[in-house]
Amino acid sequence: MAKEKKVEQITDMEVDFAQWFTDVCKKAQLIDYSSIKGIFIYRPYGYAIWENIQRVLDAEFKKVGVENVYMPMLIPESLLQKEKDHVEGFAPECAWVTMGGSEELEERYCIRPTSETLFCDHFKNVIQSHRDLPMKYNQWCSVLRWEKTSRPFLRHREFLWQEGHTMHATAEEAKEFTEQMLNVYADFCENVLAMPVTRGQKTDKEKFNGAEATYTIECMMHDHKALQAGTSHYFGDGFAKAFDITFTDQNNQRVNPHQTSWGVSTRLIGGIIMTHGDNNGLVLPPKIAPVQIVVLPVAQHKPGVLEAAETLKNRLINAGFRVKLDDSDNSMGWKCAEYEMKGVPLRVECGPRDLENGQCVLVRRNDGEKTVIKLEDLERAAAEQLELVHQGMFHKAKQNLDEHIFEAHSLEEAKAVQERSGGFVKTMWCGELECELKMKEAAGMSSRCIPFDQEHLDDVCPICGKSAQKMIYWGVAY
Amino acid sequence: MAKEKKVEQITDMEVDFAQWFTDVCKKAQLIDYSSIKGIFIYRPYGYAIWENIQRVLDAEFKKVGVENVYMPMLIPESLLQKEKDHVEGFAPECAWVTMGGSEELEERYCIRPTSETLFCDHFKNVIQSHRDLPMKYNQWCSVLRWEKTSRPFLRHREFLWQEGHTMHATAEEAKEFTEQMLNVYADFCENVLAMPVTRGQKTDKEKFNGAEATYTIECMMHDHKALQAGTSHYFGDGFAKAFDITFTDQNNQRVNPHQTSWGVSTRLIGGIIMTHGDNNGLVLPPKIAPVQIVVLPVAQHKPGVLEAAETLKNRLINAGFRVKLDDSDNSMGWKCAEYEMKGVPLRVECGPRDLENGQCVLVRRNDGEKTVIKLEDLERAAAEQLELVHQGMFHKAKQNLDEHIFEAHSLEEAKAVQERSGGFVKTMWCGELECELKMKEAAGMSSRCIPFDQEHLDDVCPICGKSAQKMIYWGVAY
Repeated sequence: MAKEKKVEQITDMEVDFAQWFTDVCKKAQLIDYSSIKGIFIYRPYGYAIWENIQRVLDAEFKKVGVENVYMPMLIPESLLQKEKDHVEGFAPECAWVTMGGSEELEERYCIRPTSETLFCDHFKNVIQSHRDLPMKYNQWCSVLRWEKTSRPFLRHREFLWQEGHTMHATAEEAKEFTEQMLNVYADFCENVLAMPVTRGQKTDKEKFNGAEATYTIECMMHDHKALQAGTSHYFGDGFAKAFDITFTDQNNQRVNPHQTSWGVSTRLIGGIIMTHGDNNGLVLPPKIAPVQIVVLPVAQHKPGVLEAAETLKNRLINAGFRVKLDDSDNSMGWKCAEYEMKGVPLRVECGPRDLENGQCVLVRRNDGEKTVIKLEDLERAAAEQLELVHQGMFHKAKQNLDEHIFEAHSLEEAKAVQERSGGFVKTMWCGELECELKMKEAAGMSSRCIPFDQEHLDDVCPICGKSAQKMIYWGVAY
Repeated sequence: MAKEKKVEQITDMEVDFAQWFTDVCKKAQLIDYSSIKGIFIYRPYGYAIWENIQRVLDAEFKKVGVENVYMPMLIPESLLQKEKDHVEGFAPECAWVTMGGSEELEERYCIRPTSETLFCDHFKNVIQSHRDLPMKYNQWCSVLRWEKTSRPFLRHREFLWQEGHTMHATAEEAKEFTEQMLNVYADFCENVLAMPVTRGQKTDKEKFNGAEATYTIECMMHDHKALQAGTSHYFGDGFAKAFDITFTDQNNQRVNPHQTSWGVSTRLIGGIIMTHGDNNGLVLPPKIAPVQIVVLPVAQHKPGVLEAAETLKNRLINAGFRVKLDDSDNSMGWKCAEYEMKGVPLRVECGPRDLENGQCVLVRRNDGEKTVIKLEDLERAAAEQLELVHQGMFHKAKQNLDEHIFEAHSLEEAKAVQERSGGFVKTMWCGELECELKMKEAAGMSSRCIPFDQEHLDDVCPICGKSAQKMIYWGVAY
């Protein structure tokens, strides 16, 4: 009964994917609405996913020599305006502070939408010599962009993210680091979040305001729309010149350093939900799940069952897993539905008969597969099953991606493919903005990226018919 | 030479304590000024101290059942105004957002100076039944208070902190939890930061805006001024009534829950500097030092020295210490001064003669004590020395505290004691605001706390001569 009731509360994804997504965010208690439109509250279960993402990624950053700092949340308008392309892109989305206490401010401050300008203002003070380079900084913080529309995790006016900012002595080193950080993100998505990615470069139209080049990882959601999951930008020395940042090189000359920035946000959680979730709710990748294993005693009023469940829980905790035992008086059906909704990767069931036989049952969230194991094998079997959950999730998502990349040789064909199947449509492209705009107008698709893995599909751009050297991915994106 | 130069750069604390403090913040590269008055940049070394504080405290919070969340950074003015005392206290210090993009907002938003109102707005939605209680939330974030004056770590317009907010079914439970969290802070200060504290209750004048009772831990700085290091507040059901938060109790009645909040901030880092620092710079408590041990090879050009130093470093890292090896070509004098400035608790020196004799030298930052140890004892000896550093630091700070608590029996005596020696002046107190104001006016001291450990010094208040039951601590505070 309880189970039936619970499952009924979620809209089927086949009926209305957007509503299914919102339902999962609410029912799994990831997020709540605040009293300001477009700003959300990260509830404990949602925030715990972010903490796990932070922990793993932060360790990866530190491995490549990145140090954490914290910059101000406010940017004076004059500072924001120092780099022309940058301010043009962000000014329309800024929230402005105009009063401090009861006094009107002499200059208004925007709440950071991103912090390139603040980092540059600081770099100017602390970079003197080539010995100070590379300087690799990162901060975990929230940023604010006054967008018109919003959706949980995918588009918030305020969202949590990390932004890395680095300065290098040479353009080559900076470019290399830009790609290195994209690969850190790509590996993280695939190996930790079980989300396969496509790596590539953004077009000039889609690149970050003020960047020379933007690299991206693009993921495929369950509804065959694209999600930009992380970006890494190479700035050349544009900001360094605008902010007058120089260092003394080995020839004793004052020169400008070369810059990168790179970021991922809580949008990744939206990606996890839409890549792995199903009609029973969340399905969480084991490596970032707040609870990896839930222990459910069956017929817990029977003698010895609760004690045995407690023992299993403690053994799993001692083995390093994140574990919860639910010995509440809710029904087994309710509990199963609840932890399915919350996407807990592995369920351990143990009842009186299991215990008699010295065994228990492991149930995988992603495919419902049950495995009966001997109690003495618990730790090893749990680790094995969690690895199988990760692999199964990755495999399914990879299949969804691979089966939804289509080739097109004309604008009409691209449009027809997108309407029929969604996904990425790959074509050749001449490199002109005009053709990019035409694709958007005719087929509703934006360019997703020029993949690093190139294929030669044709000699010409299918939109204008001119010669084309590059293959590009198009798609409808979140 | 290098050492002389380095040490000269800091003002002696006996000459100008305030300038010494600022010098340490800058030269140890903890902090930098931003382009906005009163807002500081947390540099890698300063932020790493905060990360260590976070890691230890967060684990303590989780032990008492606290969960992390993240609330919006903006508070609509109407929400801030719901609790009368609260808004009166904070409105004069709010920074106000009045524009979103190019549009004037219908209602202005303040950047959170603290988040009671936001938590209450959320609690209203998620608390239904006594089964939902207690609800124990915390967030790590930055807050903004538009203060007139500022000093690194001690008073920022924007600063990093944590704010815990909990709701309980009964007043008793909430009061108990308020004290429990104060004890978490007190134990943390003493056992982790080596900062002895005085625990007590704030007077009505000094309590948090909107609280029924505020508990505090007060520390004694090296210049004998007081620092309020952490506070824990009991709210009763005042906010709950103002925000209409109710739950169904076990008798099926709708009643208001009882509330607490508690916080510490990066002000603790200011406390660490002013409690432990000396004329050579920072002295960091081993448990939160970003680098606990620095390994310095002596005569590193001699064969085998660098390799041996590398081996020592790796052994210490494998034993779980945070370690740095400095094999740069700077002089030994420069290196010693540099890591003294940065407050690294333990220095390992190893030169050719040490290696011949199968030994190395451990030097404690806090008292300069040198210990020659056998190489095979390295890990055990390092752990022992770090423990001695902690104990030595705590003991010295405790002595400074104990020797600067004075008793007074008249306003004149209190004033004379404060002028002569600084520190805490303890007197009896009738409980009247008028006497508190008189002490401030006549002796320049505010009330620090009514200590939990009470003594009976007199029968009357030394200010008004009326009967007095309570002993109070007065002091000049940061």
